Amino acid sequence: MKFRIEKDTMGEIQVPEDAYWAAQTQRSLQNFKIGWEKMPVSLIHAFAVLKRSVAVVNNKLGKLHDEKANAIIKACDEILKNKLADQFPLAVWQTGSGTQTNMNMNEVIASRATEILGKNFREDKEIHPNDHVNMSQSSNDTFPTAMHIAAVTVVEDELVPSIESLKDVLHSKMEEFNSIVKIGRTHLQDATPLTLGQEFSGYVAMLETNIRQIRESLEHVRELAIGGTAVGTGLNAHPKLSVMVSEEVTRFTGKRFQSAGNKFQSLTSHDALTFASGALKALAANMMKIANDIRWLASGPRCGIGELEIPANEPGSSIMPGKVNPTQSEAVTMVACQVFGNDAAIGFAASQGNFELNVFKPVIIYNFLQSAKLLGDAMDSFRENCAVGIKPNREQIDHYLRNSLMLVTALNPHIGYDKAAKIAKTAFAENSTLRETAVKLGYLTEAEFDKYVVPEDMTGSKS
Amino acid sequence: MKFRIEKDTMGEIQVPEDAYWAAQTQRSLQNFKIGWEKMPVSLIHAFAVLKRSVAVVNNKLGKLHDEKANAIIKACDEILKNKLADQFPLAVWQTGSGTQTNMNMNEVIASRATEILGKNFREDKEIHPNDHVNMSQSSNDTFPTAMHIAAVTVVEDELVPSIESLKDVLHSKMEEFNSIVKIGRTHLQDATPLTLGQEFSGYVAMLETNIRQIRESLEHVRELAIGGTAVGTGLNAHPKLSVMVSEEVTRFTGKRFQSAGNKFQSLTSHDALTFASGALKALAANMMKIANDIRWLASGPRCGIGELEIPANEPGSSIMPGKVNPTQSEAVTMVACQVFGNDAAIGFAASQGNFELNVFKPVIIYNFLQSAKLLGDAMDSFRENCAVGIKPNREQIDHYLRNSLMLVTALNPHIGYDKAAKIAKTAFAENSTLRETAVKLGYLTEAEFDKYVVPEDMTGSKS
Amino acid sequence: MKFRIEKDTMGEIQVPEDAYWAAQTQRSLQNFKIGWEKMPVSLIHAFAVLKRSVAVVNNKLGKLHDEKANAIIKACDEILKNKLADQFPLAVWQTGSGTQTNMNMNEVIASRATEILGKNFREDKEIHPNDHVNMSQSSNDTFPTAMHIAAVTVVEDELVPSIESLKDVLHSKMEEFNSIVKIGRTHLQDATPLTLGQEFSGYVAMLETNIRQIRESLEHVRELAIGGTAVGTGLNAHPKLSVMVSEEVTRFTGKRFQSAGNKFQSLTSHDALTFASGALKALAANMMKIANDIRWLASGPRCGIGELEIPANEPGSSIMPGKVNPTQSEAVTMVACQVFGNDAAIGFAASQGNFELNVFKPVIIYNFLQSAKLLGDAMDSFRENCAVGIKPNREQIDHYLRNSLMLVTALNPHIGYDKAAKIAKTAFAENSTLRETAVKLGYLTEAEFDKYVVPEDMTGSKS
Amino acid sequence: MKFRIEKDTMGEIQVPEDAYWAAQTQRSLQNFKIGWEKMPVSLIHAFAVLKRSVAVVNNKLGKLHDEKANAIIKACDEILKNKLADQFPLAVWQTGSGTQTNMNMNEVIASRATEILGKNFREDKEIHPNDHVNMSQSSNDTFPTAMHIAAVTVVEDELVPSIESLKDVLHSKMEEFNSIVKIGRTHLQDATPLTLGQEFSGYVAMLETNIRQIRESLEHVRELAIGGTAVGTGLNAHPKLSVMVSEEVTRFTGKRFQSAGNKFQSLTSHDALTFASGALKALAANMMKIANDIRWLASGPRCGIGELEIPANEPGSSIMPGKVNPTQSEAVTMVACQVFGNDAAIGFAASQGNFELNVFKPVIIYNFLQSAKLLGDAMDSFRENCAVGIKPNREQIDHYLRNSLMLVTALNPHIGYDKAAKIAKTAFAENSTLRETAVKLGYLTEAEFDKYVVPEDMTGSKS
Repeated sequence: MKFRIEKDTMGEIQVPEDAYWAAQTQRSLQNFKIGWEKMPVSLIHAFAVLKRSVAVVNNKLGKLHDEKANAIIKACDEILKNKLADQFPLAVWQTGSGTQTNMNMNEVIASRATEILGKNFREDKEIHPNDHVNMSQSSNDTFPTAMHIAAVTVVEDELVPSIESLKDVLHSKMEEFNSIVKIGRTHLQDATPLTLGQEFSGYVAMLETNIRQIRESLEHVRELAIGGTAVGTGLNAHPKLSVMVSEEVTRFTGKRFQSAGNKFQSLTSHDALTFASGALKALAANMMKIANDIRWLASGPRCGIGELEIPANEPGSSIMPGKVNPTQSEAVTMVACQVFGNDAAIGFAASQGNFELNVFKPVIIYNFLQSAKLLGDAMDSFRENCAVGIKPNREQIDHYLRNSLMLVTALNPHIGYDKAAKIAKTAFAENSTLRETAVKLGYLTEAEFDKYVVPEDMTGSKS
Repeated sequence: MKFRIEKDTMGEIQVPEDAYWAAQTQRSLQNFKIGWEKMPVSLIHAFAVLKRSVAVVNNKLGKLHDEKANAIIKACDEILKNKLADQFPLAVWQTGSGTQTNMNMNEVIASRATEILGKNFREDKEIHPNDHVNMSQSSNDTFPTAMHIAAVTVVEDELVPSIESLKDVLHSKMEEFNSIVKIGRTHLQDATPLTLGQEFSGYVAMLETNIRQIRESLEHVRELAIGGTAVGTGLNAHPKLSVMVSEEVTRFTGKRFQSAGNKFQSLTSHDALTFASGALKALAANMMKIANDIRWLASGPRCGIGELEIPANEPGSSIMPGKVNPTQSEAVTMVACQVFGNDAAIGFAASQGNFELNVFKPVIIYNFLQSAKLLGDAMDSFRENCAVGIKPNREQIDHYLRNSLMLVTALNPHIGYDKAAKIAKTAFAENSTLRETAVKLGYLTEAEFDKYVVPEDMTGSKS
Repeated sequence: MKFRIEKDTMGEIQVPEDAYWAAQTQRSLQNFKIGWEKMPVSLIHAFAVLKRSVAVVNNKLGKLHDEKANAIIKACDEILKNKLADQFPLAVWQTGSGTQTNMNMNEVIASRATEILGKNFREDKEIHPNDHVNMSQSSNDTFPTAMHIAAVTVVEDELVPSIESLKDVLHSKMEEFNSIVKIGRTHLQDATPLTLGQEFSGYVAMLETNIRQIRESLEHVRELAIGGTAVGTGLNAHPKLSVMVSEEVTRFTGKRFQSAGNKFQSLTSHDALTFASGALKALAANMMKIANDIRWLASGPRCGIGELEIPANEPGSSIMPGKVNPTQSEAVTMVACQVFGNDAAIGFAASQGNFELNVFKPVIIYNFLQSAKLLGDAMDSFRENCAVGIKPNREQIDHYLRNSLMLVTALNPHIGYDKAAKIAKTAFAENSTLRETAVKLGYLTEAEFDKYVVPEDMTGSKS
Repeated sequence: MKFRIEKDTMGEIQVPEDAYWAAQTQRSLQNFKIGWEKMPVSLIHAFAVLKRSVAVVNNKLGKLHDEKANAIIKACDEILKNKLADQFPLAVWQTGSGTQTNMNMNEVIASRATEILGKNFREDKEIHPNDHVNMSQSSNDTFPTAMHIAAVTVVEDELVPSIESLKDVLHSKMEEFNSIVKIGRTHLQDATPLTLGQEFSGYVAMLETNIRQIRESLEHVRELAIGGTAVGTGLNAHPKLSVMVSEEVTRFTGKRFQSAGNKFQSLTSHDALTFASGALKALAANMMKIANDIRWLASGPRCGIGELEIPANEPGSSIMPGKVNPTQSEAVTMVACQVFGNDAAIGFAASQGNFELNVFKPVIIYNFLQSAKLLGDAMDSFRENCAVGIKPNREQIDHYLRNSLMLVTALNPHIGYDKAAKIAKTAFAENSTLRETAVKLGYLTEAEFDKYVVPEDMTGSKS
């Protein structure tokens, strides 16, 4: 590989000839050979949005000339079009303020903007990474700002639509299954009946709750640190910068953002993302429950519960011919485990700030974005490859319903809990039906039994 | 000990002669000898509120006669006055629906209400635990209802006031310290200045955020499962019961509650408490940060940072005479670790529902209430025994401020980042001052330096 | 309440007249009103063992006269006989080094020992808490030493025997069920057969592994910090003290302990307990699996899997008469969640040491001891109230076995995976048997089928 | 792109013309578009080792002819030489048994082996993925076997050497710093002295413990599931297969492996990796502590503790010129947070097995391998870029030592704790020295003070 010499305040360093990045990116590459995880693309894009917006504002404020501002803006637009995707090679595991990724952005934009201005960036730093691209900024305020822009973007554009879509499919199943009466199960044991539609209504309600929780938690993430610069005081930034950049980011992205009320908090606390991660965890917990229910209800085909049929998407076993497995549920529940782990990592990292800065930013945003992406993708996959194809096995559902002893519960208001219990226990012991046993014990006539115990009537409350 | 014989649907069992509880509580005592953790008092009280409210409503609905209803209400009031505190001996680790605690409530209330009616509860079950006290209810809807009532009560009455109080103290410190300029620290390294008041403003803003997050998350917890009965369908409950009980609980407690929109969700998902636990975790993370800052800033007295002085509350060491330690910070940060662990437990448990019920309810509410109580208590303790007595060490603060090399940052807009860096590095290497070095390097005159580098001017942004 | 005046290096303070504790315990009581969790009794007892052992050794070393040493020893023995159980009222949430509990021990022992010497401890400090009871010690080495003694004791005396007992019961079930061939299930879907005994053999093997892991991890916990005093250097302790005390603790407890190789590590790292907590977590994970299996296999009675019957210990529902639930499994799985949370708290806390000390000791040992106790108790409860009474439902087991399509796997070596799959899929689609389908498709004769597909032969490998 | 048609038991599907993989890999690609995480290379290589070893053994057992066996072996060797690196495109988030990755291996090896035999794999399946490459195997035993091979390999070849190397560097620092007496710090407050070498000896001892713990935990991971096939019974596998394959893997890798004692456990429990992850967590906790110590001791340069100097590897701030930050510590501590989160995910996933299989295998091994790799890489990076360059700041160290009030502890054995405390408190209040104060209070003469209080003598115990 051919190299050129770049320098920064530490001295000279060799950089690949065709790289737009410069000395500081290169130092990070060499000093942090850790893991396989790169800074997520969504964060890089959020950074490009931010750098672009600050250039717009610095230009408006008269601090950056039109020519330079426009060159920076064009370079950012190229990044947003993925034209410079190979220019952001840094690891997640670097400086805890994300300074090196901020400098990676600054260097690439500076080089490319210099080129856009017709200069050779290898020789001439027409656009300076710090003085122009990073003008009025610090890693300490840009990185958390980019974290928030990325988080809001991924959650709003990817995760929430995925939840909505799955919710819609489950809602249509709910309506489709509305008249199918089935046995309920609590403690895994037979319980009183409900409709399959009611069971699915619980899933729909859960996802609706999750959407609300995620949206509420996102309100805190809309607050941007930009303008705080190095320690929160805003040194070297124009007093109007924070509000103006927040407005420009809002305008450019079409998403609501606002200047954070207290910049000292913004740099050193990550309560917004911790809280939002909690909302993702609540979603993961509900999805684990839903995916588990589906696979248990579809268990079988001959030795399980078998109330539902799910699509057979692939051979299930490399040794057992003809086996079909609930693999979409498996992916969802594995993702849930990952989200639980990520949430633990985020909370702990968020607690470790000192003085004016929390230096666990990359690990926080990496985990948050992974959680959001995994949940969204897994819900899409589950919807397309499983949920849409769920079908009831009417025969099996009816079989269970007619046999359950817990229909006896309908007798409580008529004969009391103790006598009802006696019927159920006797029927179980004698392998008999509730009806026969009730009559035999002399608690009710057949007519009374038939009047009181109607599974279809047990799926709702009555006055 | 003397015993009497009680029976339930499983048969006879010996119960201590003077216990109000009956067979099912006794079975649980014998079958679940696990750990030292009892059901929290706040949950028992929430249950009493609920049982009382259902009696009121069943009476209004004409299902429960005045005499019986009033006896139940009186028994509940006694519980709320802690008169029957020794009657709830059950462990957290029992049936996962909390059925045994529900029955413990039903049995104690039934016995005591029978007594109130002038009968001997040992012989005569005038008030039946299931048919009267538990009328129109199931453990499956009462336990999650009590969980929510307890959670809202503890958070609103204990936790939030504790956050408010600490926030107020920190706010007064913020104002008191407003004109004290000090060096900032990022990455633990010297950074640009801010005021001590600004540093504390970050803490205040964090706690304000935490209060908002906790309150927002609590909205979901205000939804009550009551009326869902066994599987969410409301079997054996009057259709108006849920709304009426929610209103009665609201009236009685003075706190807002409402009937949950979907009872299937209420029984089998704990998304509300999972989300709220995430809010507690965000508070724990902020408190860990604040408590850490205080102890680091107060480190010393001669070999640490020493910018703050905190109250000396007790001898710090059993071997080192005269040692004083930041013990309140230590308690707070240990509590934070506990809250992180509890949050992990809650999330896992909440994900484990099957079909119509999640049977991890006791472990969820135990952890949630422990987190809320520990945070509230720890913040009170930290406030009273530490925060109110925090004092600045002006001499030390000034000493650091005057020596820091990062004042050089004020020069960026005037001479550019690279030259400013050269000044700082040279001053460090030569153990010199920035001023001397700047002049020596020929970048500025003394007058220019004095004009640009004014720590007091560096604590805010300027146009 | 009557009070007396005590003093320490901070000044005077009122202490309840009849308390053996003195000023520092009282200060802690007043300064740390946090939570309901007290220092576990097992830790208090471990401390008494330690204080006793140091007195023995200091006496041997000629630093403590016979009379004083004997008085201290007697006071410790009283603590170990639970005679002073109400004298240790301090919260878990105190100074992070446990100094206040160390002083609580020192003060109580000093007072009681003074009394034993015939003096009035309210007036005369014949035995001084620091100079005599705490002689040659610091909280910084005694607290971690007591942590290790308590952990080894609880694990060896309570947890491991509980695992052994459950393992033995499961082993006897394994033998009892050895000839019962049943269908296997993977992905919750029907798979190839195994014996019920083989299924239980997996549980036995898991618990054997857990015992080994716990024992291996305990080796690290046997290392004692004693002798390190304030910062690990052993200042003010005799060079032989550490080894001699470790030997005395070993002699007195009958458990192996040894002086830690590096005392700086002992005070500031809790790698031993973190690792041991990981072993407890592995046990919790296995127990969650086992308890889940049992309740799923016992699900029903008419709408579940129903291969096993478990004891009916109590009425399962307050509304559904006759319902019986797998409550022991529920307690076990809730405990598992708690252990997961505790393990997270321990790991976080263990990572937070600074310089010569980790000040998260109380939260670490509280969680560790809770995990160990809960696991032990839950396993005992599960064994007594569930495992011993597990019975197979032969009819149901046979029913599934004869119907499963996965018996087709036995044909792989004879006709290949693809043809075998065709048989299974066709039989499923046509709701037919494997045998009929195999013959109909012309892949095998009836005789060949009967020769190859013998469930009993499928429960082991063959050459 | 050009496609060819492949089929499996589900029917036909388009596969890219030049892909070695076939139908089942393609189905997984289409059905699981989740996240950006691919199956780690170390797992793919472990699978190649396994497939190779089984081919060798099946050949020895006379079940696979030489020609086919050799072709399979050659194909595996190519994978191990990274020649087919682009042929394993599947996501971590797939079927929970890893079946699809097992089939990906089977398909790629089958195609390539067919090619090696001179056939066109697009037309002729000379080597069949299931019947030959997967002969005598199931995903259910191969995937956990590959998990264990990968885990042992990465830990032994990458992680442990990295710990050893860092330990060696810290050991040399320990020796280098052996005579440097410095002040100790507990609770962040000044404590009694120790040598800088002693402080580093704690780090060395921690890493030695971590190595032992990791090695001990690895013993359980050496047990291989192979031979259990579908449900643990070994159906369709030769009785000698398990032992012979374990020996062949041992021979080929040069690492110890053995056939697991109970295959039912192997398929459904992941206690070995859970326990080993706990060992990684203990390492992460120690590394967090060490990295924190280093950055705190190096804090400054003028407003921190400043006892150590660490290498300046890159500009630390995009806004503060000349700033140098402890970035290597930051990467290490972020990695520690990730490992904590991963450990939580692993434990939870490991608890979720049902019946004969745990279907959370991919998420378990992904997190384990990530933890191992991140820890190894981070320790290498920390060693090379920080630890080797650590230097003491003698001036600062001496300054603190001479000023500390905790030297007073040396007086305890001579004048008692209470008087010693009085000296320290008075000296602090009067901003005086211990010596002056001691004499002034009349407790000692100057000569006595100078004899008793010698910092150098306080760094060890004395008889």
